[in-house]
Amino acid sequence: MTIFYTLDLLGTIAFAISGTLAAIHKRLDLFGIFIIAFVTAVGGGTIRDVLIGRYPIGWMNDLNYVYAIIGSTVFAILVRKRIDFLRTSLFLFDTIGLGIFTIIGTEIGIEYNLHPIISISLGVISATFGGVIRDILCNDIPVIFRKEVYASACIAGAVVFLLLTKLDVNTNLNYIITSLIIISIRLLAVKFKLALPTFHIVKD
Amino acid sequence: MTIFYTLDLLGTIAFAISGTLAAIHKRLDLFGIFIIAFVTAVGGGTIRDVLIGRYPIGWMNDLNYVYAIIGSTVFAILVRKRIDFLRTSLFLFDTIGLGIFTIIGTEIGIEYNLHPIISISLGVISATFGGVIRDILCNDIPVIFRKEVYASACIAGAVVFLLLTKLDVNTNLNYIITSLIIISIRLLAVKFKLALPTFHIVKD
Amino acid sequence: MTIFYTLDLLGTIAFAISGTLAAIHKRLDLFGIFIIAFVTAVGGGTIRDVLIGRYPIGWMNDLNYVYAIIGSTVFAILVRKRIDFLRTSLFLFDTIGLGIFTIIGTEIGIEYNLHPIISISLGVISATFGGVIRDILCNDIPVIFRKEVYASACIAGAVVFLLLTKLDVNTNLNYIITSLIIISIRLLAVKFKLALPTFHIVKD
Repeated sequence: MTIFYTLDLLGTIAFAISGTLAAIHKRLDLFGIFIIAFVTAVGGGTIRDVLIGRYPIGWMNDLNYVYAIIGSTVFAILVRKRIDFLRTSLFLFDTIGLGIFTIIGTEIGIEYNLHPIISISLGVISATFGGVIRDILCNDIPVIFRKEVYASACIAGAVVFLLLTKLDVNTNLNYIITSLIIISIRLLAVKFKLALPTFHIVKD
Repeated sequence: MTIFYTLDLLGTIAFAISGTLAAIHKRLDLFGIFIIAFVTAVGGGTIRDVLIGRYPIGWMNDLNYVYAIIGSTVFAILVRKRIDFLRTSLFLFDTIGLGIFTIIGTEIGIEYNLHPIISISLGVISATFGGVIRDILCNDIPVIFRKEVYASACIAGAVVFLLLTKLDVNTNLNYIITSLIIISIRLLAVKFKLALPTFHIVKD
Repeated sequence: MTIFYTLDLLGTIAFAISGTLAAIHKRLDLFGIFIIAFVTAVGGGTIRDVLIGRYPIGWMNDLNYVYAIIGSTVFAILVRKRIDFLRTSLFLFDTIGLGIFTIIGTEIGIEYNLHPIISISLGVISATFGGVIRDILCNDIPVIFRKEVYASACIAGAVVFLLLTKLDVNTNLNYIITSLIIISIRLLAVKFKLALPTFHIVKD
């Protein structure tokens, strides 16, 4: 399970960096930056845990998450001027976090005997709502509602994860396959500029 | 209780449609539309349940809500161009949902032995906070803070519901009377353009 | 403990007034004003309680908070035109509330055997997130992310509170010392226009 835990921390770090950059962009002060980094990193998992009454909430009992967030926030502030370098690696980390958090959330739903559709929803909430809170606090419409096949990748990954779980595939193998699917879909979507349809309210 | 359950689903459908229309208006993509529809429909009840620690939260154990939301979102996307037709029926459904959700929330407060004032607050939260989250996610000031005698109708209905409960009026009859009061107040308020006062910060 | 309880109610009143003024400024109607006043006053403590699964949530079982909020909201609406007078006293009350709420939250974290860092975070969340929700509902970027050494004062106070608790200082004395520290830092910061650094994303 240590690989999984490491990847979980990596995802947390990636989301914290993404929050830090968004907060700097909005010219928030140091406290604001830390808060945004924090809620981006743990917000999705926190909402998931509150929704199913799963106490204590993860980051409250494992300080490694707190240290990872503080460390990566300081790091992101220091190297903020080399942002082009950051953008690329951030995208990768962010996608890794997305994959991992989707699977963690889905698995917790299964553990709680929730219906597969609800479990998938929990996975998507875990992976995406940190970013949603980040955007709300920064007074933007959440970016995942408008760009990239971000959430669709999570949903596809969660469905495959559930199927492989039913087929009794080895858990670690399942983690790796599902993460790779989510990461691949997102990378391909960005490369080929795939997007979900939008709809307009106009009369013909 | 089946009439009540049916009305509850109707309210859920109405709120999902209202969320769908708001999301289309903001040009969100398909995922964004579903999320907004979902939180508009279940957000108020979810906050109510989290506030009193009532687990599991309703929609997590009854997939009919999920199906109702998905179905009505798809429906609203398909008929979005006949929006004038929708506006009128939406207003009716929305008002029905408002009445039902207010009563459900108030009744749950009573079940949890909360003070009448808190029970009424729970009813109002159940009925209105789905729309509040919808507006926050769409980056608007929540419409219920500014227009229509929306929440006042809920409060009036919840008070009557509590009084009739104390008087041991038959529960189903109580539901019907209270819902009709809420629906009537809202319809009359819109017809006669009644509004709550606003206040300005200016010196004489 | 009655002094503490009194100060807690004073803080609630101050936050309710601050919410009322923000809502009037946004031209919300009477219902909107009450909701904003309410969430500003109890929002921080509510999020704290939900995060640690502490039920029932305080204001749901003690109507004094509800009465204090309703009373101070009505008061603030009535005297809104004498706002210059209000600004000064509001700042004082608000700072008192900040100090008290920080300490309450930190102490609850200790009671729940959380790590000191998490306990301090709970204190800061209790003190600041009511205002964060107020600003989100009013469609602003939360002011504490951008101005004044608001949160830093809370953090400093919470750290001292923890240290004095470890040293077995008398609880009431600890409350007084820590509150005075938080209040002094904030007053000095405003007087001398101290602020936390912000960072910019620009290339040299």
